[in-house]
Amino acid sequence: MKPSFKFRGSPNFIMQQTYQKLARKLEELGQLEQIMGILHWDQEVIMPRGATQARAAQIASLAGVAHEKRTDPAVGELLNQLESNGPANLGPHELCNIREARRAYDRETKVPMELVQELAELSSKGHHIWAKAREENKYSDFAPVLERLIELQKQWAHHIEPETPTYDVLMDIYERGLTMEHVDPIFELLKTELVPLIRAIQESDYQPDTSFLQGEFSVAQQEKLGRTISEALGFDFDKGRMDVSVHPFCGGADPTDVRITTRYGSDNFMESLFAVIHETGHAMYEQGRMERDRALPVSEALTTGIHESQSLFWERMISKQKAFCEHYMELFATTFPDNLKEVSVQAFYEAINICRPSFIRVESDEVTYPMHIILRYEIEKGIFDGTYAVSELPEVWNNKMQDYLGIRPATDAEGILQDVHWSGGAFGYFPSYTFGAMYACQFYNAIRKETPDLEQWIRKGEFQSIRQWLSQKIHVKGKLLSTEALLREVTGEVLNPQYFVAYLKNKYHEIYRLGPSN
Amino acid sequence: MKPSFKFRGSPNFIMQQTYQKLARKLEELGQLEQIMGILHWDQEVIMPRGATQARAAQIASLAGVAHEKRTDPAVGELLNQLESNGPANLGPHELCNIREARRAYDRETKVPMELVQELAELSSKGHHIWAKAREENKYSDFAPVLERLIELQKQWAHHIEPETPTYDVLMDIYERGLTMEHVDPIFELLKTELVPLIRAIQESDYQPDTSFLQGEFSVAQQEKLGRTISEALGFDFDKGRMDVSVHPFCGGADPTDVRITTRYGSDNFMESLFAVIHETGHAMYEQGRMERDRALPVSEALTTGIHESQSLFWERMISKQKAFCEHYMELFATTFPDNLKEVSVQAFYEAINICRPSFIRVESDEVTYPMHIILRYEIEKGIFDGTYAVSELPEVWNNKMQDYLGIRPATDAEGILQDVHWSGGAFGYFPSYTFGAMYACQFYNAIRKETPDLEQWIRKGEFQSIRQWLSQKIHVKGKLLSTEALLREVTGEVLNPQYFVAYLKNKYHEIYRLGPSN
Repeated sequence: MKPSFKFRGSPNFIMQQTYQKLARKLEELGQLEQIMGILHWDQEVIMPRGATQARAAQIASLAGVAHEKRTDPAVGELLNQLESNGPANLGPHELCNIREARRAYDRETKVPMELVQELAELSSKGHHIWAKAREENKYSDFAPVLERLIELQKQWAHHIEPETPTYDVLMDIYERGLTMEHVDPIFELLKTELVPLIRAIQESDYQPDTSFLQGEFSVAQQEKLGRTISEALGFDFDKGRMDVSVHPFCGGADPTDVRITTRYGSDNFMESLFAVIHETGHAMYEQGRMERDRALPVSEALTTGIHESQSLFWERMISKQKAFCEHYMELFATTFPDNLKEVSVQAFYEAINICRPSFIRVESDEVTYPMHIILRYEIEKGIFDGTYAVSELPEVWNNKMQDYLGIRPATDAEGILQDVHWSGGAFGYFPSYTFGAMYACQFYNAIRKETPDLEQWIRKGEFQSIRQWLSQKIHVKGKLLSTEALLREVTGEVLNPQYFVAYLKNKYHEIYRLGPSN
Repeated sequence: MKPSFKFRGSPNFIMQQTYQKLARKLEELGQLEQIMGILHWDQEVIMPRGATQARAAQIASLAGVAHEKRTDPAVGELLNQLESNGPANLGPHELCNIREARRAYDRETKVPMELVQELAELSSKGHHIWAKAREENKYSDFAPVLERLIELQKQWAHHIEPETPTYDVLMDIYERGLTMEHVDPIFELLKTELVPLIRAIQESDYQPDTSFLQGEFSVAQQEKLGRTISEALGFDFDKGRMDVSVHPFCGGADPTDVRITTRYGSDNFMESLFAVIHETGHAMYEQGRMERDRALPVSEALTTGIHESQSLFWERMISKQKAFCEHYMELFATTFPDNLKEVSVQAFYEAINICRPSFIRVESDEVTYPMHIILRYEIEKGIFDGTYAVSELPEVWNNKMQDYLGIRPATDAEGILQDVHWSGGAFGYFPSYTFGAMYACQFYNAIRKETPDLEQWIRKGEFQSIRQWLSQKIHVKGKLLSTEALLREVTGEVLNPQYFVAYLKNKYHEIYRLGPSN
């Protein structure tokens, strides 16, 4: 066989050079975005309070530079050259970077600058108006902003995909490929199955004791416990940090600089602990990314929903299961002996899995959470297809709460004004929370099928092979596959909500003594 | 009197518009530099150790963007337009921004890109080679890098100012306007006066007791003490932070986000305390900057030497004087009772002002420090005028140490390899330390003349009016005046090294019982 030579000037060589030019530009942009990550983290965790205005100006300047770079006509030109040559002689990583760069370039260049600016300004102003309206419980103060944001998002979506329904274009920002056609039957199934389950739980004669979760819990001890468990699950503190912020989050820069936060209240240790575990799940996705192309799109997390699946995998599927409680009960009891010395594993397990309808999404449990999401999904869908007027949304909200959870908010602050998302113009984000929960459950089912003694490992506190499984099957895959293809590869089938339904029914039938679940 | 109208299209209006365009560009650049400040601070204080490589790439990308912005031909065009119209109808702030922008633009565009890149790469590589050479005490490993850095700096200076001696061009980077012609007689005077003083101090029969400064000092107590004193001097913790790093520094972003660091050793509380006071002096310069134009050159610190004068003003002129010890002795004694309960103010004052020749610049005291600087100045001067070859520098160094301080380093590590500066290509920086010390002394003399009861205030711990004096006379002036003009305005005369000499002679004649100082 003759060796094949590649010449300078050959089409392949030129394509490689063109690709390298594009990659350098994307990498520069990736690094600027990493810097933005550090600025945001710093602002939430470290920054002196007097620096708010200066930081806003810094972020605006950096965002301006990033926008210039993203819309650089040279990027468009490189993309045209690469695309006109077809996929020949480029590998899957290169093709993915080209695909993602095209998507980002189109999104940045298809929308008129005035619309982008009005959206940015109104989102920033909207946040303050929303916060004040929530504080004063006055939906009418927020309604005009909401009205305008909806109008602007309609325009934005029309520029991006004129033939596609607005709400599908918006969901696609966060959960690539998600459409109402796809979501509707899944959410209908969840409603059909979970509304009666929630009712049965509420009506059960047996209600777990949670009294020992109240009390005084030293913040220093909480922090120590959180670090111990985060490290045991696999968070690499050489490539990350754990700090405190008002709202827990996972941020930072690249896979070697992943920063999680939590918050501590001395009257409750579960909140800080589960926040740590949740953010550790996000963080391990970031730390587990592929070794190559780390400042390029291909190595980045696939979607918001897949990211959420990683946090929920550890928070719900692992750390809210009985085997986990069995492993850590002794540590919990020695950390907080006054409260937990006498508590059995079963009592502890039941208490941390209490199911109780609540007005507030972020305070709700894994059974009621999907109802909060479905309510928002239906409202967002109705906003964009014209079913609901902005003025009637509080009423719609409250009726749906009544129907799905059997409770009715007394104020808009604990109803329609509770979430920050809409004030920043983020419509279509909510479904990814519940898709994340369903993915997490399906992933858990897959690893369990492959590893029948999975719960034995958990009972022994051996999490390394679980983290490696997630890393090799999901984290290192970046954006190489679509969500659907990833699910097929990892679990053998596309999203199947029955896993999630079965998981909830089995678990809560047992906890609440509701008899066999089918 | 008829009111004067300004029309759109009038020359004044056009000039204003042109200026505003320039200012927006400079402001964007200023904000990117502030971001760089946060990245550097984060790297030294917070960053996970695994993130070194990613951070270097982020910084390189941001530096690349800043370079593009600084050399943007549109900046050159705006400067040409503004300069061709002369100073009419622009105020001093605007004219200063134009002047500074011109200087920066010329410096960035006059030097060929290949030279800039070789310098950047060699400086970065040079740092590692120097660190290793110092560790292994092998000057010969560092010499070739030093040789090449000197050659590159000669080329650089020639591109900037072909008619000016290289070393003057280099000193001008840090201390605008400083020339050998200016420095030579001043450093000669210092040598003439201080070499005999140092000898007399060494030969004095009276040597203060410093034993109580050794011992065990709780780090938590040190931190509390540092914060208390920093705040008392006037550091605004709402617009800044205090943390820990390997080398103390003052960094951060803008005047609302000034971040100082110190380091703690449990065997020594003076080091952390004086580092805090020193950095507090730098920080108050930053926090005291003018309210307008905060991301523009006019509001920035005047020179490296003036910056150093602010840190040394507080570290030496204020906190190493007896009145300061009188005020804080009780706090020191209650903070560290095991060590200081029985120590008198006079004994404490003498101990913290001990003068003792040392091989290492950063460990030296205010009397011997200028000798370390003069030695480096003479060597740098000789490097660039061809007097010294790189190979003979260790010998030159050791001989000068012998002449000026009466001690001879046994190794290059405690001799010529001790400082980081040259490894990064920074020649001409050292003089600004001693000019800062002389400015500080002259400023102190000026405020003392205006305020005869100054030491009464210090004895009572009332520092606010001192800080305000510095702020109004120096900090808010930014770059509006030259150093010479600033000194004239604040002290009534240009730099007069006699204040510094008299201060040292008076103070150390008293401490070491050397009799009247003249």
